[in-house]
Amino acid sequence: MLSVLSDEHFMKEAFKEAQKAFDEDEVPVGAIIVCDNKVIARAHNMTERLNDVTAHAEMLVFTSSTDYLGGKYLNECTLYVTLEPCVMCAGASYWTQLKKVVYGANDEKRGFRKHQENLLHPKTEIVSGIMQNECSEILKRFFDQKRG
Amino acid sequence: MLSVLSDEHFMKEAFKEAQKAFDEDEVPVGAIIVCDNKVIARAHNMTERLNDVTAHAEMLVFTSSTDYLGGKYLNECTLYVTLEPCVMCAGASYWTQLKKVVYGANDEKRGFRKHQENLLHPKTEIVSGIMQNECSEILKRFFDQKRG
Repeated sequence: MLSVLSDEHFMKEAFKEAQKAFDEDEVPVGAIIVCDNKVIARAHNMTERLNDVTAHAEMLVFTSSTDYLGGKYLNECTLYVTLEPCVMCAGASYWTQLKKVVYGANDEKRGFRKHQENLLHPKTEIVSGIMQNECSEILKRFFDQKRG
Repeated sequence: MLSVLSDEHFMKEAFKEAQKAFDEDEVPVGAIIVCDNKVIARAHNMTERLNDVTAHAEMLVFTSSTDYLGGKYLNECTLYVTLEPCVMCAGASYWTQLKKVVYGANDEKRGFRKHQENLLHPKTEIVSGIMQNECSEILKRFFDQKRG
């Protein structure tokens, strides 16, 4: 029997990655790539560990999923990410020709949607607000803790 | 005697990288990062070799220059790149807080400047049109050859 798993199911997987980031003192954002109902890449933000501001969870899963698939495009894949992607990640997503992006929390300051023009590939479907509370809560907790 | 080298001088270095890309059958775009009048990173587009659409010359030099400097920010550095950066690379440049970007050819279709809003960090200075002809000519030659 083919069972199609829900966006909530997969966002929970992305959220597990955000929790790992939190435990490692990284900004808690997690992402996974799903292809044919299967998780083919998972990562969390690693900007501190790698000392690299480009090491966002999305960039890491884009690179590892194309490596896994052997093709350069993700036009049959969905990105689940706990926070609205930034301009860099939206621009990267454009190049991957991503089929769909599903994100949790909004990022009013740095999210790609504050820009009026569509920065994603015109064929990329967008779903937002899945596990929004949990996804924003873990970020709030992280930054509250940082501020002491 | 302190001699301050010109933008043309450094763009020639970026152009050498574009030529290497051409020779390796990659889209011929090259980039370098300059800090205190010294080249600290150089790369060319490697999307084919790495099978990774995010492996633009700019992304590669951002990562290797922060690795070299040991800090996450490039606010004392200049990026020289032969082609106007795309949205992804402009977004990455935002996170690096790059001091200055100098580019050669315009990219009317995929360049970040076709977007009305500034996608770079507000403090990043922009210079364009350095070695514009050479930088666009090598791209034209590459794509003409591809089309047979």
